[in-house]
Amino acid sequence: MQAYQQLETRFDEIMTLREIARLLRWDRSVMMPELAADNRAHQMEVLNVRIHGLQTAPEIGELLAKADRKALDAWQAANIRLMDWIYAHATALPADLVARKITQEAKTEMVWRKARAESDFSQVSDALARLLDLVREEAEVKSKKLGLPAYDALMDSYAPHMPAATVDEIFDDIAAFTPGFLDAVMESRPQPEAVPGPFPREKQRELALKIIARLGMEKGWSRLDVSAHPFSTGMGNDVRITTRYSEDEFTSAIQAAAHEAGHGFYDHHTPKKWSLQPVGISQYMGMAIHESQSLSLDMQLARGRDYWEFIAPLAREAFGGEGPAWSAENLHLSATRVGRGFIRVEADEVTYPAHVILRYRLEKAMVSGELEVKDLPDAWNAGFKELIGVEPPDDRRGCLQDIHWYSGAFGYFPTYALGAFIAAQFVDKMKQDVPGLSEQIRAGNFGVFVGWLRDKVQANACLYTPPQLIEHVTGQEMSTHYYKKHLSERYLGREYTGSKGGEACSDTSAPEARRKA
Amino acid sequence: MQAYQQLETRFDEIMTLREIARLLRWDRSVMMPELAADNRAHQMEVLNVRIHGLQTAPEIGELLAKADRKALDAWQAANIRLMDWIYAHATALPADLVARKITQEAKTEMVWRKARAESDFSQVSDALARLLDLVREEAEVKSKKLGLPAYDALMDSYAPHMPAATVDEIFDDIAAFTPGFLDAVMESRPQPEAVPGPFPREKQRELALKIIARLGMEKGWSRLDVSAHPFSTGMGNDVRITTRYSEDEFTSAIQAAAHEAGHGFYDHHTPKKWSLQPVGISQYMGMAIHESQSLSLDMQLARGRDYWEFIAPLAREAFGGEGPAWSAENLHLSATRVGRGFIRVEADEVTYPAHVILRYRLEKAMVSGELEVKDLPDAWNAGFKELIGVEPPDDRRGCLQDIHWYSGAFGYFPTYALGAFIAAQFVDKMKQDVPGLSEQIRAGNFGVFVGWLRDKVQANACLYTPPQLIEHVTGQEMSTHYYKKHLSERYLGREYTGSKGGEACSDTSAPEARRKA
Repeated sequence: MQAYQQLETRFDEIMTLREIARLLRWDRSVMMPELAADNRAHQMEVLNVRIHGLQTAPEIGELLAKADRKALDAWQAANIRLMDWIYAHATALPADLVARKITQEAKTEMVWRKARAESDFSQVSDALARLLDLVREEAEVKSKKLGLPAYDALMDSYAPHMPAATVDEIFDDIAAFTPGFLDAVMESRPQPEAVPGPFPREKQRELALKIIARLGMEKGWSRLDVSAHPFSTGMGNDVRITTRYSEDEFTSAIQAAAHEAGHGFYDHHTPKKWSLQPVGISQYMGMAIHESQSLSLDMQLARGRDYWEFIAPLAREAFGGEGPAWSAENLHLSATRVGRGFIRVEADEVTYPAHVILRYRLEKAMVSGELEVKDLPDAWNAGFKELIGVEPPDDRRGCLQDIHWYSGAFGYFPTYALGAFIAAQFVDKMKQDVPGLSEQIRAGNFGVFVGWLRDKVQANACLYTPPQLIEHVTGQEMSTHYYKKHLSERYLGREYTGSKGGEACSDTSAPEARRKA
Repeated sequence: MQAYQQLETRFDEIMTLREIARLLRWDRSVMMPELAADNRAHQMEVLNVRIHGLQTAPEIGELLAKADRKALDAWQAANIRLMDWIYAHATALPADLVARKITQEAKTEMVWRKARAESDFSQVSDALARLLDLVREEAEVKSKKLGLPAYDALMDSYAPHMPAATVDEIFDDIAAFTPGFLDAVMESRPQPEAVPGPFPREKQRELALKIIARLGMEKGWSRLDVSAHPFSTGMGNDVRITTRYSEDEFTSAIQAAAHEAGHGFYDHHTPKKWSLQPVGISQYMGMAIHESQSLSLDMQLARGRDYWEFIAPLAREAFGGEGPAWSAENLHLSATRVGRGFIRVEADEVTYPAHVILRYRLEKAMVSGELEVKDLPDAWNAGFKELIGVEPPDDRRGCLQDIHWYSGAFGYFPTYALGAFIAAQFVDKMKQDVPGLSEQIRAGNFGVFVGWLRDKVQANACLYTPPQLIEHVTGQEMSTHYYKKHLSERYLGREYTGSKGGEACSDTSAPEARRKA
């Protein structure tokens, strides 16, 4: 046990310094005066170098080898498994590759900002190609070190234990489902009446605070602020979420607050005892599971008809709304509009997975060498047409829209869609477990919903791997069935049978189908 | 040069981690959800242990010994002098004494909070006595290590290069001056008319923001927030100040903002090139010089009749004020009320030094063993009567009012009064240097005032020692003459001649007198 205890002591320090690094990032996005950017970058570099040094210390490797794993209980065993993972990733790359990649990321991102503003992919093409070379190098090195296929080795940083072979299967199924389903929704779904403003920022903030309080987010351990891109950070009794306000409409601000609150609850509900060990830190479950918690609130709960029954009166009160546009029905319709939009972050539940699948397929092909950077715009536009039925009018609304690739993050995108599917699977189980859930939500008793997630998912922190957790919570493996069921019920108003008419029905859509992950 | 360059590299990291520690403290006081206190304490401990380890690394001592000091330019020489000082203080105390003192400080402070609330010194007497034993032990160890008398060795942490023998002389002079001067002011100064409220917080904040902007504090590199006790932190392009608002009156909020802005300008105006080396960090000038910058704004500028000529219309506009109570004359009278109050932090310019001198004399006697803790309340009350002419009705308004001793800070108090005297000396010189200063201030051109401090004082950062700086800026050594002159002109409306009638005239009050510091 002594080696294990020494590891806990070392990781307590590492995790604490990482908390501090997270606070620096929060402060930079929310509070910091803008001219302090260079100095903050230096602070973060100094701290990250220190953290990297602690994570890659040879003593960690020795202690991991020496620890008596048979003597550990379940939480300790999960903890050391994550220590292995952290150490393997931290020591996988040679320092010079890390340095070259960081430099090329910064350059490419800078060029991308201008290229996107001017909607001109050719400006950033060379820089992205150079970055992709380094990403391929990284994938190769990590592949050998981690014993995973090249793309899997990249994805392992963001979605551990989710093999690309599994993701392929799941995404192919949804890719086959989406076009026909989207056509059906576009034909049958009524258009909402426009909800008239104005929507003053301060009123939106009050409404958002009311909603997250109702969700169970207490002032004693949380904050709500404003940032350019909503995010969540912190943990335990220091959870900080942000949103942003547009005066043109109010739903995106409160949806973003609910989304980030979902992340925040995960960070708050992990066991205090493990709060400074990897096993207690929800981030180490990977982004797919983390997104499942935010999307459970943002998509499953907060785009539901029941939810709007409770929210509509609050919204009318906040903005002095009157008349049929402000009915629960119309506000719900408005919050769940479906369309063939070009922008991922503005996409609805029906098209969102298709946006992600496109990116996943393209980045996999880029990493493997099947697709070269110069051919990216054409490949993007063709793929978009196939999945969503229209073609982007320009690259700004096409392959230039997201920062991920241009900042070196390959393997991240799939987590967004996986999180949505897992959320649907969890909430389907919740409906079976909680009788009268619908009535509770209409009455604003959201604690029932959040409490189920807390008990079944969040309190387990990283005790299970992601596939184990899904099985533990729902009694079966990850499946696309529940997402398709959810979409059918919400957007077509009809029960999902698991059969999609003329289309081929993939195995992964049947609840009884079990994959080996 | 190589040893020196290595020192710069090491101190860059230390100073950067210290910046991060300051941000953690700021966040704790201003932003952090309250339940996060334990976790934040752990973060700060981890970070401080790491900083302490870096500051006391034996390699620092070796490099300091090896560095070729003759090859250094003036800034580098000042830098290595401060490195010597930091290393000497960091390595002076054995680890077990540091640990025992931290523990006893925490205990004593906790007991003090209750004792103060219940105005019962006997509750905290034993705890303070135990802490004093450790303070005496600390003073003895540091005395040997630093080659200074015991009390000087403590004061050296807060006011380096200010020997207690000098402070004695200065304080004795002011102690002799104050009672008679206070009597004269109390007899002759008119009472202000009450300024009627309400003073909404948001309006006070807008006024404070207007004033600090007018002083030259730009949004791009600063913030103004709220905290229980106003303070300033950060540096360079990340300066953060706080104030607090009472709805009963508005002057204390804007005075506190001006005071903290004074600290903030010091932190902003130091040379960017040296911002991560000790010589570039204004804190290493000690608190006396730092307070001279805040008090130059808060006392010298912002309690002046000229200043209120500009502020009065802004205040009338902010609060919708009308009538004679809102005249510049009356607002100025109100902001410069003088009285025999018991509380230091509420004291006026006339009595403030006496509050400090009392504490200085008592803490020196406690450290030397002449005064025991059990006799503190009586000694306090007798000293207060002698200096300010009244006796505190209870210990809450007597020796229990300040946190300093109960948290182990002996040697800090004198810096407050020294700062006030130095500010008067600086601003007297400014008046000679800047023709028409009075008219500029009346017109709200505060940049002239702040710019002089920037050029003469702040841009020098720690290039000079405090006594050298005073001489560099004013052409002579520290003197009480200018403070007495300032008080006479502002509070009795008459020129100060250097002679105080029947009282003995100390050498230190004559501008031509020069002491060896």
